[in-house]
Amino acid sequence: MSGKNILFSVLLLFVPVSIAAHILEWGELTVFITAGLAILPLAAWMGSATEELAVVVGPTLGGLLNATFGNATELIIAIVALNAGLVDVVKASITGSIIGNLLLVMGLSMLLGGLRYKEQEFQPVVARVNASLMNLAAIAILIPTAVDFTSSGISEATIQHLSIAIAIVLMAVYIMTLVFSMKTHVYLYDAGVAAAEPSEDDAEEAKSKLWVWVGVLLGATILVAVESELLVDALEVATSQLGLTALFTGVVLVPIIGNAAEHATAVTVAMKNKMDLSVSVALGSSLQIALFVAPVLVITGWMLGQPMDLNFNPFELVAVAVSVLIANSISSDGRSNWLEGTLLLAAYAVLGLAFYFHPVIDGIG
Amino acid sequence: MSGKNILFSVLLLFVPVSIAAHILEWGELTVFITAGLAILPLAAWMGSATEELAVVVGPTLGGLLNATFGNATELIIAIVALNAGLVDVVKASITGSIIGNLLLVMGLSMLLGGLRYKEQEFQPVVARVNASLMNLAAIAILIPTAVDFTSSGISEATIQHLSIAIAIVLMAVYIMTLVFSMKTHVYLYDAGVAAAEPSEDDAEEAKSKLWVWVGVLLGATILVAVESELLVDALEVATSQLGLTALFTGVVLVPIIGNAAEHATAVTVAMKNKMDLSVSVALGSSLQIALFVAPVLVITGWMLGQPMDLNFNPFELVAVAVSVLIANSISSDGRSNWLEGTLLLAAYAVLGLAFYFHPVIDGIG
Amino acid sequence: MSGKNILFSVLLLFVPVSIAAHILEWGELTVFITAGLAILPLAAWMGSATEELAVVVGPTLGGLLNATFGNATELIIAIVALNAGLVDVVKASITGSIIGNLLLVMGLSMLLGGLRYKEQEFQPVVARVNASLMNLAAIAILIPTAVDFTSSGISEATIQHLSIAIAIVLMAVYIMTLVFSMKTHVYLYDAGVAAAEPSEDDAEEAKSKLWVWVGVLLGATILVAVESELLVDALEVATSQLGLTALFTGVVLVPIIGNAAEHATAVTVAMKNKMDLSVSVALGSSLQIALFVAPVLVITGWMLGQPMDLNFNPFELVAVAVSVLIANSISSDGRSNWLEGTLLLAAYAVLGLAFYFHPVIDGIG
Repeated sequence: MSGKNILFSVLLLFVPVSIAAHILEWGELTVFITAGLAILPLAAWMGSATEELAVVVGPTLGGLLNATFGNATELIIAIVALNAGLVDVVKASITGSIIGNLLLVMGLSMLLGGLRYKEQEFQPVVARVNASLMNLAAIAILIPTAVDFTSSGISEATIQHLSIAIAIVLMAVYIMTLVFSMKTHVYLYDAGVAAAEPSEDDAEEAKSKLWVWVGVLLGATILVAVESELLVDALEVATSQLGLTALFTGVVLVPIIGNAAEHATAVTVAMKNKMDLSVSVALGSSLQIALFVAPVLVITGWMLGQPMDLNFNPFELVAVAVSVLIANSISSDGRSNWLEGTLLLAAYAVLGLAFYFHPVIDGIG
Repeated sequence: MSGKNILFSVLLLFVPVSIAAHILEWGELTVFITAGLAILPLAAWMGSATEELAVVVGPTLGGLLNATFGNATELIIAIVALNAGLVDVVKASITGSIIGNLLLVMGLSMLLGGLRYKEQEFQPVVARVNASLMNLAAIAILIPTAVDFTSSGISEATIQHLSIAIAIVLMAVYIMTLVFSMKTHVYLYDAGVAAAEPSEDDAEEAKSKLWVWVGVLLGATILVAVESELLVDALEVATSQLGLTALFTGVVLVPIIGNAAEHATAVTVAMKNKMDLSVSVALGSSLQIALFVAPVLVITGWMLGQPMDLNFNPFELVAVAVSVLIANSISSDGRSNWLEGTLLLAAYAVLGLAFYFHPVIDGIG
Repeated sequence: MSGKNILFSVLLLFVPVSIAAHILEWGELTVFITAGLAILPLAAWMGSATEELAVVVGPTLGGLLNATFGNATELIIAIVALNAGLVDVVKASITGSIIGNLLLVMGLSMLLGGLRYKEQEFQPVVARVNASLMNLAAIAILIPTAVDFTSSGISEATIQHLSIAIAIVLMAVYIMTLVFSMKTHVYLYDAGVAAAEPSEDDAEEAKSKLWVWVGVLLGATILVAVESELLVDALEVATSQLGLTALFTGVVLVPIIGNAAEHATAVTVAMKNKMDLSVSVALGSSLQIALFVAPVLVITGWMLGQPMDLNFNPFELVAVAVSVLIANSISSDGRSNWLEGTLLLAAYAVLGLAFYFHPVIDGIG
């Protein structure tokens, strides 16, 4: 823990550095890198704070809390980018976040957890409900792309209308999911907790620090917003200096920065064999992006006059479909081992390579 | 029950009304709506009759009986439409029926059943065999579309030959499935019955009314044919007056009318916690459409000189693939709850919206 | 057994016959057919030798041994063809081998095994790990095709670089898989063995013949190379005389010849109810082609100056995807019956028909 804390404290230095880089005009690339580095510890602190809070409020609510505040980073960056007119980067970062959580976060958790424990278990019923939710979410956000791809010509307005209608369906499903997990079928989610439940001492200690962590959470959230402005302003110039396409930046770079909190939390708890919480963070985060963040951005974009639809690059469709497929195939039996973690990471590597080599198309870039 | 019966009796009034509308030329739209409404109670009566007969003959044969007579409505409408040259509507109604049974019928059953019972169970082995059958069926009927979509130019005759060859494979699989479920592996299908088995009194009562229900079945079947003629004759003019594309009509409207029997039966038995029968009706009906109705129509169309191939709109391919995916992911564990029902309905809503907004392409419409 | 042996002995006569046909110039078609027939018993003897050796070294290593020497036939034919510049045939034979092992070999095993035993079981955990590996492999080798298909223009060099990068990821995964199955999680693979373990007498007998079988293995391997040269030289002229496209030849004919060893082994052990070994041969062979043979060929082709990428015909992508889907759906529960075997064979028939009717496109042919 202390090693991690020291690293995070050092990275926090990039908060003032990035602001200085912006004011003193040290170049877009410097601002982009320092702002990106500054967001990492902020998101990680949000993660740590959330984990501590999760101990007090219980794993289910804790998992939700984790996903919410991990996605807060994501949502803040996305709204800032949407406001700056970077619609394609925002869309790419939605698919990238889903892919990143399912493959990179869950893969790292299962690999590092699996190196310590031969086999790790989590609630199969919850895993299966989540798999079905993930299937629905993937289908829903990718249907507009499929409609566009299979028709010879479709107006932008029609895609926009279809996207808004689907966004409303997704939000309704999201609310239903909360009713299910917090009201009608709470016991399914509690069943997996017994093994992972912390000792009473831990809980006592956590409670006493409750307000400290709430403060950390709020402070980090505000700084993330600030840094997101710097990151987004510098993004276009910086990534073209690095020779990267906007597609690669949106799908790979932005989500890694935005999902640092999930990484930190999911991997840490996996190494403590709290696999229920770990999978809940990774899958839950993907679900929340698809069922909550994406619809919010469609409607926000519409209100900001930056019309954002759910019409993605067809290769993003392929990437999300295969990610959901392999993540479900690995998680649905409620068990994991290091090889399964490796497979998820390999799938992420393959997709990352493909996005790296994919030539820029459509409006992207 | 009596409320349902009253509703159905009232709807039966549309049988004479629709015939009057046709003869007195009250307009195509009036004929279309009244004939559609007239088919609903007829199909529903067929469903009730079938459910009663199923009590006597046992759930397995009963499930088959249900699927056959539910699809009789479908098959009658399709053959009438095929004869009238509406090949694209017939093809759309095949995919629509598969989607409708998997998502709408099974979704409503799981939702309404799940509101009464926290968790409902059904035979997982049968569910898995059905899932594999459904995968095969979806693959088979969609391969011609994939061949067309991935080749730069293919003759109509080649697609027709490929479709007939596949139709023969599907029929052979269908016969094998009957041998499996009724001869070599009967015990798998019986295992789920014990819980759902009716009391001896029910069985006695049902037996005494056996011939009444057989009569209802035959009468309803004949009237459905009559009404199908009216429906099909009015279809093109009526739907264009409503501003709907032929694709939407074929995929959404026609199957809802044609599958009313499955709806009534599957939902009713789900609410009585006979989930084995309910799932068997919904999945069985989809299977029978893919493995039996579609091949019959390919061969019938060929004989009627209205060559019907299995080359669908590529978006229909996407829609069937995702429907099978999510239906299998939800049904393969042999358990259901209201949220899973909601997910199926949400998937149906998303696809319905997509078909509504999908611009007309190819020969469709 | 003796019937099989007599058949194989007779087929061995085609070894001298094919060589004579080549030297005496009896025509390309004659050479192609006789060389193909000569490879069948050679590959089958390799299979028999491997099965005997497997008894000595144990099922896990035995399964690996089977897959290696089955794929040796495949690999030899492929390298000879690659050297002759038949890149498209080699690529088609990779997808064809994956499809053939998953559907034809596993289908025949489950069907013929299932006719003798009502239900057959195998290790579900191993089946699930294999299913996830198969998903990853399918994704990886098909991603370059998806990149090409979804971009408006991509250079051959980019596809080549992407293919080599992916080949390296796949080889790394392959090594990890060996570490997993032979070192960290051996117990998973051993668990299924108890039931299939041969009696001590069999093992004694096998040991005494160990060197005989090693000799058979080496002799057959050399002859396969010789015959492969004849087969490949005659391939183009012969198949065009038969009216077959190069795509059909590569996807259907070459893999059937190349996979004869897997057929013989997998079916024979399935009929002895050693289903763990049977599934391990069929799935393992597909995995090894995707994770080992394909990457080796990409790198070999690059070194031979016959650049081979992983950019397939889009319909091959569809065919591999659906094969993996249905094979996983059938194998992941660790049970099989004759209907499931029939379904796999029906899927193979449907795909075979589609490849037969698919018009020649791109560089293929």
